[in-house]
Amino acid sequence: MKLVSFTKNDGLSAATSGIAVVRTDGTVVGLAHDSSLPTTMVDFVALGPSGLDAAQRVLDDVDAPSINDAMLLAPIRPRNNVMAVGKNYHEHAKEFAESGFDSLGQTTIPEYPIIFTKALTSIIGPEDEITLSSDSTGTTDYEGELGIVIGPGGSKIAAADAWDHVYGYTVINDVTARAVQKRHVQFFIGKSAHTFCPMGPAIVTRDEIPDIASAWLRTMVNGEERQAAQINDLIFDIPAVIAAISDAVLLEPGDVIATGTPSGVGAGQKPEPPNR
Amino acid sequence: MKLVSFTKNDGLSAATSGIAVVRTDGTVVGLAHDSSLPTTMVDFVALGPSGLDAAQRVLDDVDAPSINDAMLLAPIRPRNNVMAVGKNYHEHAKEFAESGFDSLGQTTIPEYPIIFTKALTSIIGPEDEITLSSDSTGTTDYEGELGIVIGPGGSKIAAADAWDHVYGYTVINDVTARAVQKRHVQFFIGKSAHTFCPMGPAIVTRDEIPDIASAWLRTMVNGEERQAAQINDLIFDIPAVIAAISDAVLLEPGDVIATGTPSGVGAGQKPEPPNR
Repeated sequence: MKLVSFTKNDGLSAATSGIAVVRTDGTVVGLAHDSSLPTTMVDFVALGPSGLDAAQRVLDDVDAPSINDAMLLAPIRPRNNVMAVGKNYHEHAKEFAESGFDSLGQTTIPEYPIIFTKALTSIIGPEDEITLSSDSTGTTDYEGELGIVIGPGGSKIAAADAWDHVYGYTVINDVTARAVQKRHVQFFIGKSAHTFCPMGPAIVTRDEIPDIASAWLRTMVNGEERQAAQINDLIFDIPAVIAAISDAVLLEPGDVIATGTPSGVGAGQKPEPPNR
Repeated sequence: MKLVSFTKNDGLSAATSGIAVVRTDGTVVGLAHDSSLPTTMVDFVALGPSGLDAAQRVLDDVDAPSINDAMLLAPIRPRNNVMAVGKNYHEHAKEFAESGFDSLGQTTIPEYPIIFTKALTSIIGPEDEITLSSDSTGTTDYEGELGIVIGPGGSKIAAADAWDHVYGYTVINDVTARAVQKRHVQFFIGKSAHTFCPMGPAIVTRDEIPDIASAWLRTMVNGEERQAAQINDLIFDIPAVIAAISDAVLLEPGDVIATGTPSGVGAGQKPEPPNR
């Protein structure tokens, strides 16, 4: 199932917003058709399979109306900051170490996953504009990433059990102010500038992509492909990342983890591309 | 004004929880007496002065009942992860660099504030127990810190205007799994273990402490003083921290910033104290 959050302003009344399912024909069916369902994605994800069953019943109801002209928001606003993995593809770890922006001083691949967070106020929808003035250093860069959405929460989740905690997938641009990332050493500020976390358009539930490891992640900048990697190129795969974080941190339903970016970021290119 | 969040279970009905003011005589007056006020601190802080005026009217109302046997929670659950400053006191920067746990590789004081976050799921109340099993490395350490609570949000807040964005103060123990902090390089996991952010007991509004710089921060461990420093020993003072974060990040009302810990943490002591 492909799930989205939307807002809609009919020009007459206040904007309405909610969550919806995208059918295979592209039409969007609002889940408010079942008034017992929550209005936010984070609460819907917390329902687990019973929420998805109810959503399927809405889809099966011939009277469920489609929503037209909905503007897509980020599919979810998690309870905790978006968690993200640094240097999680081999080729990117190398290009970043050589870019001059790496404050970590590591030229080899990390021994343990490097986890930082992005502020919730950095999240924007898939069609929203990134505000470049949020980066006072003018070194804004893109990082296309696979995002995972946590279903059942928990701590000390073993890698062998981790898939049971994956609700679905989304797409995240881990936009980064490179000079800010470097000078503050810890990545938070450089990764959390306002509008620096475009997400979506959708959450695709895990059952739709049985073999995520063979899927390709591609980043296009103004129509030009800049990044392309298979998910199985991850240094720490999805179960390893969930196990590492939850060894200490209590994860909650709807938490989002950006799994890292492959090579091809602007900072890794010499000469740097003009429209980075 | 001294503000707290509480829960109370009378044994007969479901637990009630809410926000309250602590009078100078120690009695606790629930703000639910004014049913127009919000029930969570983050929403109350967002009201700004009008919320505090309404709270004063509740205090002035002779019929406002005191709450007995309330259990204090963390005073606030912010919208974003708790933000925190690393190595922000000169003596601590030195002791941490020499402790063997510093992954940053800096022996000098930071040129820019080092900002990381603690997961919201790490927050507990002032009397709650820290779960040591959340740290699988057995290197749990305390860090007593002054916390600041943001009133009006915003981005690109100049240091000269920063005090207008400070709603009040609280106390935070930035509990840290030292070996986890080190091995993951970025501090998030080692700082965000479940229960590793005791906060409170109260938020004290800014007007109550006109000269916060001259106040002392003291950390007691089982009755023994381990840390004592004046707030004016901060490397980056409160306006500088707010300016640095908000240069990129959009702050929201009720956001919490832990301003850093002074020297005297367990990791800095040789031999390490037995009851760290």
